[in-house]
Amino acid sequence: MTDLLITNARPMGGMKADILIKDGRITAIGEKLAADGVPVEDAAGRIAIPGLVDAHTHLDKSLLGYPWYVNTVGPLLIDKIDNERNVKREYGLDAHVQSMRQSLQSVGYGTTLIRTHVDIDTDQALVALEGVMETRRQLVGVVEIEIVAFPQSGLMRRPGTAELLDKAMAMGADLVGGLDPCGMDRDPKGHLDTIFAIAEKHGKGIDIHLHEGGELGAFSMEMIFERIRATGMQGKVAVSHAFCLGLPDWNVSQALIDTCAELDVPIFTTAPPSREVPSLKRLHAAGVRFGAGVDGFRDTWGPYGNGDMLERAMLLGMKNNLRRDDELAMALDVCTTGGALAMDRHAHALKVGGRGDIVLVEGESVGEAIVTHQPRKLVVTAGNIVARDGASLRARP
Amino acid sequence: MTDLLITNARPMGGMKADILIKDGRITAIGEKLAADGVPVEDAAGRIAIPGLVDAHTHLDKSLLGYPWYVNTVGPLLIDKIDNERNVKREYGLDAHVQSMRQSLQSVGYGTTLIRTHVDIDTDQALVALEGVMETRRQLVGVVEIEIVAFPQSGLMRRPGTAELLDKAMAMGADLVGGLDPCGMDRDPKGHLDTIFAIAEKHGKGIDIHLHEGGELGAFSMEMIFERIRATGMQGKVAVSHAFCLGLPDWNVSQALIDTCAELDVPIFTTAPPSREVPSLKRLHAAGVRFGAGVDGFRDTWGPYGNGDMLERAMLLGMKNNLRRDDELAMALDVCTTGGALAMDRHAHALKVGGRGDIVLVEGESVGEAIVTHQPRKLVVTAGNIVARDGASLRARP
Repeated sequence: MTDLLITNARPMGGMKADILIKDGRITAIGEKLAADGVPVEDAAGRIAIPGLVDAHTHLDKSLLGYPWYVNTVGPLLIDKIDNERNVKREYGLDAHVQSMRQSLQSVGYGTTLIRTHVDIDTDQALVALEGVMETRRQLVGVVEIEIVAFPQSGLMRRPGTAELLDKAMAMGADLVGGLDPCGMDRDPKGHLDTIFAIAEKHGKGIDIHLHEGGELGAFSMEMIFERIRATGMQGKVAVSHAFCLGLPDWNVSQALIDTCAELDVPIFTTAPPSREVPSLKRLHAAGVRFGAGVDGFRDTWGPYGNGDMLERAMLLGMKNNLRRDDELAMALDVCTTGGALAMDRHAHALKVGGRGDIVLVEGESVGEAIVTHQPRKLVVTAGNIVARDGASLRARP
Repeated sequence: MTDLLITNARPMGGMKADILIKDGRITAIGEKLAADGVPVEDAAGRIAIPGLVDAHTHLDKSLLGYPWYVNTVGPLLIDKIDNERNVKREYGLDAHVQSMRQSLQSVGYGTTLIRTHVDIDTDQALVALEGVMETRRQLVGVVEIEIVAFPQSGLMRRPGTAELLDKAMAMGADLVGGLDPCGMDRDPKGHLDTIFAIAEKHGKGIDIHLHEGGELGAFSMEMIFERIRATGMQGKVAVSHAFCLGLPDWNVSQALIDTCAELDVPIFTTAPPSREVPSLKRLHAAGVRFGAGVDGFRDTWGPYGNGDMLERAMLLGMKNNLRRDDELAMALDVCTTGGALAMDRHAHALKVGGRGDIVLVEGESVGEAIVTHQPRKLVVTAGNIVARDGASLRARP
């Protein structure tokens, strides 16, 4: 079933309309559309929004389904990375099972498109990638999953990792990942040259984690910019987190943002309350593509989160001090159509010709839907009903 | 009914125990306590925590019960303040009804103690105060409400306000409020001298809103310190928000924090993701009393929030980058016993001799209870059952 007629919906909180999906695409939005044998769902006046887009997460490592993880980890980044590898081994964590659990939980929340960073390291090699790829196969038609081959434990500091990334790309990962070329890998030139070379070899893009703050992050950004120019990879290299774009020195951060616009570098945020972050309005004004994600959650890194991108839109709004309804609509766009655009998906929109990914949400307005993020009534992926009343139709393992 | 035996609870997520409340006080915590005719509630292994404490809110001005408020307000503080007075007039907002609605919603979330700042201005004079005082009378035994007489629209800039504050204190407000002596009132000396004089006259404390950031906030803090020393009001003057304590310059902010400790100035936060805030761990290390609140919500200022202090503990944790379970326990303390201590309530604790305010929450651990903040199973105020399954027993108007 990839045809569906949704009646009595309020697209983006506006006037009531029917939405007709045929062959997975929206073919009409209007009053009293004819069903013509297509299955019908009555939205009963609920708001219709595009499928939510989780543009930055880690499907392979949540501890969903396990007892509560009592976190006693140390304060440093390396403490968390080493602890995670140990816990994974101890638990025998199965990336396929965990990614199924998280993906289906996210589907229940209305997410229809996910970009996930999957750990590639010399401990577990490509096992997590295989697991997430199996999840991707099983969930075709339910949720789209884009995979970044992610050197979580470092690249230059762990010989053999680059070769694994290369293999990961050959196996079918969509993008090459990276991580804090200075702060983590202590060799920004080596790190960036390596990931750009792998990306070029496979004709794929890059999405690099950059937690480095302040001037250090700015330095790494500049080194990324230099390589985009040198390789002609404009539009193909994204930066996740990019805390340095929130640098208080306006001149420094604005120069970085302007260069992101010039070189078409999409930015992905998780809107963490505890850090300086790229400003939604500022990136919007500069024309930088911008998406958001839930990041990892309920894992060894931290306890927060549940996969809900509507709640993330709220956090994004709170972080950016968005109070007006028109501002809240911008936050929702980042978590739907805008986030998809930042992932080069141009048809993820609630319009004729757009992909038939629709979520029915509760509230008088888009603002109320974001703020209260009540259970989603209906989730539709390319015309398929995949979740009802907050839960995916397919049971979690 | 002020006697109650709660069986099979896990106090603070620990081992199972019964909790006996007599005459509104906890008289025993232990295994297999005898009921002796006291009503019994089976916690069925749920976690028991102390009543949640909302130490900073605005009961008189939420728009709960009204249609969604479409916010189109301007960017300045004064835009929001002027807009609010206009909307209040237009809606004919009834502070008694609104404060009943919010208080009972909060009770459903497990809040048993509230400090509310009530608007006093030359437009509405003491009407809001009368309304909230009526709510306080009606909710005796359900939730304790402490009232701050709050000059939301300014003090020196609106002649007649000081006289109204004086009357408010005579009527029974508990504390004198204040608001941004520089940023809002443009006369820090006049503002602070006035509120300290009213507080001294009535023998009451002060709780002043200080949104002023950076060095401006630091300046206002110093002027507050000078007056505490001059009047001998150590321990009687609290500062809400106190964003300046989050100043990045460690020397400046640490000097302020140390003086808060020296003069026993309690700090109240709402943990806004968009601002620099006082650090939980840093205040804790310095020995500064620290509470948290939900602030105003669903009002003309902004759309976020619902009154849930367990969700606020999560936001406090996210803002302070707390990830370990022992750190999450600190966040919960700020939202319960610690917040009450900052309000000079020394018996608000889950221990023998403590007030019989108990909330049963869901989760394997306190961390999970905070992170998932599921509906509260049971809320008990001084031995009275006041809410079940997320809703107060008393219906909202």
